[in-house]
Amino acid sequence: MYLTQQTDYALRVLIYAAVNDDGLVNIADIAKAYDISRSHLMKVVTALVKGGFLASVRGKGGGLKLGRPAEAIKIGAVVRLMEPMPLVECFSEGNRCVITAHCRLANILYGSVSAFLHHLDGFTLADLINAPLHKMLHQPAIEIVQAA
Amino acid sequence: MYLTQQTDYALRVLIYAAVNDDGLVNIADIAKAYDISRSHLMKVVTALVKGGFLASVRGKGGGLKLGRPAEAIKIGAVVRLMEPMPLVECFSEGNRCVITAHCRLANILYGSVSAFLHHLDGFTLADLINAPLHKMLHQPAIEIVQAA
Repeated sequence: MYLTQQTDYALRVLIYAAVNDDGLVNIADIAKAYDISRSHLMKVVTALVKGGFLASVRGKGGGLKLGRPAEAIKIGAVVRLMEPMPLVECFSEGNRCVITAHCRLANILYGSVSAFLHHLDGFTLADLINAPLHKMLHQPAIEIVQAA
Repeated sequence: MYLTQQTDYALRVLIYAAVNDDGLVNIADIAKAYDISRSHLMKVVTALVKGGFLASVRGKGGGLKLGRPAEAIKIGAVVRLMEPMPLVECFSEGNRCVITAHCRLANILYGSVSAFLHHLDGFTLADLINAPLHKMLHQPAIEIVQAA
């Protein structure tokens, strides 16, 4: 059973934005923090902005921030947005399975996907953040160091 | 979210064997019934025999049958046998995600996979079989037609 790389990256992007919710973040910094390609992140960020999980602040000094508080972002909602759900062949458009019309498996699998997502709905982005993660991913604001 | 083709085919093979539990079945007939390749089924059948879901009867007139009654085959157990579970990168051996040590997501996802499988454990192979499927997949025993 797999989730797509897009869903995996979407959750990492939101974790990064949640840890840095005292400022704006950008794709280059996220890519650097996780050592993943910027081009992979572009599509993910676009989907998260469209879905309201991220907000884009334009202009010089612009960047990205959470679209709503971390406590209001359910993990299940992020997975629902990002993840296609063609669990087996009969869920997809190209379905050729000859027993589809009479098979009870699809309904049972729909139920199991619901159980999967329902479990994830019990957690928010805020539940993912802890002190070590904060230390690892937080970008301190630029400080002006005064000469002694 | 995807299950592998192997899991999909494993369930179809077991449905076929369950419908034909008054006799033995073989890979060629299963492949023909579902219009899928025999070579794809070989590996699946080997795994199902090894897992005890199918029994192989050797020799002339041999074939395959359910390894236990359909009522005793939980769908969750078949999925557990067949399905690798590298849900996201941090579940797999090649994991490079830098926040793995402190991220709570893996535990939450483990819980959601458990919920997925627990739902499937509520159903057995017998729950998948119904009259139209039986009509569609059952191979009648060879009848000796007497001349009038």
